[in-house]
Amino acid sequence: MSGPTTPGYAFRTLATSGAARAGLLTTPHGEVETPTFMPVGTQGSVKTMSPDEVAATGARIVLGNTYHLWLRPGPDVVAELGGLHGFTKWPHAMLTDSGGFQAFSLADRRKTDEDGFVFRSHLDGSKKVLTPEVAMQVQGKIGADIAMQLDICPPGDASRADFEAACARTTRWARRCLAAKRADQAVFGIVQGGTDPALRKAHAEELAAMPFDGLALGGFSVGEPIQRMHEVLVEVAPTLDPERPRYLMGVGTPYDLVRAIGAGVDMFDCVLPTRNARNGQALTRTGKVVIKQARYRTDPSPLDPTCTCPTCAAGYSRAYLRHLFLAGEILVLRLFTAHNLHLYGTLVREAREAILAGRYEAFARDWLAGLEAGSQAAT
Amino acid sequence: MSGPTTPGYAFRTLATSGAARAGLLTTPHGEVETPTFMPVGTQGSVKTMSPDEVAATGARIVLGNTYHLWLRPGPDVVAELGGLHGFTKWPHAMLTDSGGFQAFSLADRRKTDEDGFVFRSHLDGSKKVLTPEVAMQVQGKIGADIAMQLDICPPGDASRADFEAACARTTRWARRCLAAKRADQAVFGIVQGGTDPALRKAHAEELAAMPFDGLALGGFSVGEPIQRMHEVLVEVAPTLDPERPRYLMGVGTPYDLVRAIGAGVDMFDCVLPTRNARNGQALTRTGKVVIKQARYRTDPSPLDPTCTCPTCAAGYSRAYLRHLFLAGEILVLRLFTAHNLHLYGTLVREAREAILAGRYEAFARDWLAGLEAGSQAAT
Ligand SMILES: [Zn+2]
Ligand SMILES: [Zn+2]
Repeated sequence: MSGPTTPGYAFRTLATSGAARAGLLTTPHGEVETPTFMPVGTQGSVKTMSPDEVAATGARIVLGNTYHLWLRPGPDVVAELGGLHGFTKWPHAMLTDSGGFQAFSLADRRKTDEDGFVFRSHLDGSKKVLTPEVAMQVQGKIGADIAMQLDICPPGDASRADFEAACARTTRWARRCLAAKRADQAVFGIVQGGTDPALRKAHAEELAAMPFDGLALGGFSVGEPIQRMHEVLVEVAPTLDPERPRYLMGVGTPYDLVRAIGAGVDMFDCVLPTRNARNGQALTRTGKVVIKQARYRTDPSPLDPTCTCPTCAAGYSRAYLRHLFLAGEILVLRLFTAHNLHLYGTLVREAREAILAGRYEAFARDWLAGLEAGSQAAT
Repeated sequence: MSGPTTPGYAFRTLATSGAARAGLLTTPHGEVETPTFMPVGTQGSVKTMSPDEVAATGARIVLGNTYHLWLRPGPDVVAELGGLHGFTKWPHAMLTDSGGFQAFSLADRRKTDEDGFVFRSHLDGSKKVLTPEVAMQVQGKIGADIAMQLDICPPGDASRADFEAACARTTRWARRCLAAKRADQAVFGIVQGGTDPALRKAHAEELAAMPFDGLALGGFSVGEPIQRMHEVLVEVAPTLDPERPRYLMGVGTPYDLVRAIGAGVDMFDCVLPTRNARNGQALTRTGKVVIKQARYRTDPSPLDPTCTCPTCAAGYSRAYLRHLFLAGEILVLRLFTAHNLHLYGTLVREAREAILAGRYEAFARDWLAGLEAGSQAAT
C-alpha cells in the first residue's frame, strides 16, 4: 500500500528539507498545501469567524468535533442539511475527530471496554455508546472529507502496560473502523504509544499495514514534558510511511509547529490560537500580547506592526482592543481570533516556502530565535 | 437662523412627499443621506460588527454612548487615540448622546438639580457630576461630529407639571450647552414635552430660536402608548424648523420608522435591531424569525429569502443558525446583527427612493401591510 486509498484523495510530497516535507493533499473539496494548520470548528463554526474569514487566514482545511455535533444538532440534522459542508458553508476540506477524546474528557460517567465507550451526554445526561462502528457511522453522516478512527488515548503519566494495551486495542479498533467506513470518506489511523519511540514505531507499522489514507500521531500533549514530545517526534515522525500525510493531533504552540514540521509532520490542529484569542491573548512571532495589561491603556500601535492580518491592517490600536476586551465587546474576540489564526497560517505558509527552497533549518532557527527572544522579554 | 450653524455642516431637503423628506446632511466625515438610521455603538463598537460591516448595511452615521465611553476608557484616552473616529476606525459620521439618559437609567444613587446630574458609576461606584458644561466637554473630547445637548427626559407617565418643568430646564441647559460647545462640533437641541402637542411645539420654538445644528425629539418611547407617540409626531414633527435635520431619539421598530418618516423625521437610532439580533430574533419585512423555535430545526431556507444581506446571501440555513444560537456560538450574533441592520438600512434607503419619486404614501402602505401580515401570521 502507498498513499491514500479512498477514491478522490491523494497525497504527494513536492520537496523535503531535512525531515521537513512540503506536500499537497487532494480531497473532494480541494487541495491542501502542507504543512497545514487546521483551525478547530468545535460546534460547526470556528469560534467567532465566518468561513470567508477563516479561509483568509490561509486555512484550507478545518476540524470539526464529532462529539459536539453528534450531541447537538445530531448527525441526522447535519446530513439533512447537506453534511457539514452544506451546513456550515465552509467550501474547503474538512476533517472530523472520532469523538472518543471528548467523550472521555467531557462526558459524565464514562466507561471503556473492548467494544467502545459508554457515556452520558454532558448536555442532557442521555446515554450514548461510541464504538468504532458508531464513530464511522456518525462521521459518515456528518460527512467531512476525512474521518478519524476511534482510538484509546491514555494520559501522559499512564503505565507502560496501559500504553501497550492502548496500542493493541487501537489496532483492533482500526480494523473495525476500516470495515465500517463510508467508501467515499477518507480515514486516518492513529498511532499511540506515549513517549516510547519503540512502542510508537511498532504501532505505526501495524497501522501502516492497513489501507488508511493518512497516519496521525495521537496521545501527545497530554501531560508529558513538551521537550520529551519533541524528542520522540524527531525519532518517530520520519519513520511513518512517507506516502501518506502525517497529522499531529491537538498540537500546539508556534514553537511546537516549527519543531514538529522539522520532524516531518504535515498536519496540525489546536484550539490554542482560537482559545487564547478569546482570553485576550494575541500571539506574535515574538511572543504574546496580553491585552488586559495596563501598559496598553493608551498604546496606539497595532497588535503586531509587522502583521498583515485584517486586525493589524485596519490599524486598531492596542488601546482600543484593550478597551473592547475590558468592556466585554464581542468584536475584540473576532479581531484576536483573526490575528492568531493569521499567525498560524503565516507560519505554515512560510515553513512550506522554506522547505520548497531547501532552507527549512534556517527558517526554523529564525522563528525559534524570535519566539525565544519574545519569551525572555516577557519575563 | 436657518440650517446648521457650525462650520463644515449643512443640511438640505432634496424632495418631499407629503410630510416625508429626503435630505442630505453634510458633516466633516462625509454626507449622510436622510432619512437615515444610526446603529448604536454603545461602547465604541456596534456590538459584534466591524466598521466595514456596519457601513455595508448602508449606515453612514453611528451613535456612541457618552455615558459608557466617559466611564470607560474615559474621554482623555479616546482623545489621545484620535477621538472616536481614530479610536474605533469608523470613517463616516458619528453622533454622541449627552450621557444624561443613561446616567439616569443605569447609574446608582443619581440626583438631579438645576446644575445637572450627580451619580455613581455603575462600574466602580465613583462619583460623577454631569452638567451641561461637562456634557459638552466630554463629548468634545470624544469628538463625534454631532453632540447632543444635556436634557431632562421624564418618564411617559410623568405629570403635566413635570413635563413643563423638564421643558423649561432643558431650555436653560440648551443655552449652557451652546455656550460650552466646541466651535467645530455640531450640537442638536432636544425637544421634550411628553405627548402634549402644544407643549412640544412651544418647546420646539424655544430651541429653534437657538443656533442648534439640528433638532431632536426626545422623551418618546418611554412608556407612553406607541399609537399616541405617532399621533403626536404627525402633529409636531412637520412644525420643526424645516431647515434643520429632525432626529427622533431611541425609536424604534420598522413600523415606527415607516410612520415617523411619514411625519417628517430624518434621523433615528435604536438598539432594537442589534439587541434583538443577540436574542436570536431576526427582523424581516414580514415580521420576526425567533430562531430558537423547534420549527426551524431542519429548515433549509435562509432567514429571509428576499434579503440580500451577507447572512442571507451566504445561504446559511435557519437550521444552522438555530444550531449556532442554541450552542452559544458567537458567529450567529454577528450574522443576525448584520441581517437586522441590513433591514433597517434597506428600509431607510427605500423610503428615501420613494420620497424622491413622490410616492411615499404607497411605500408606507406596502411596508405597513407586510409588517401587519407578518404579525398576524405569528399569532
Ligand atoms: Zn495581526
Ligand atoms: Zn438577511
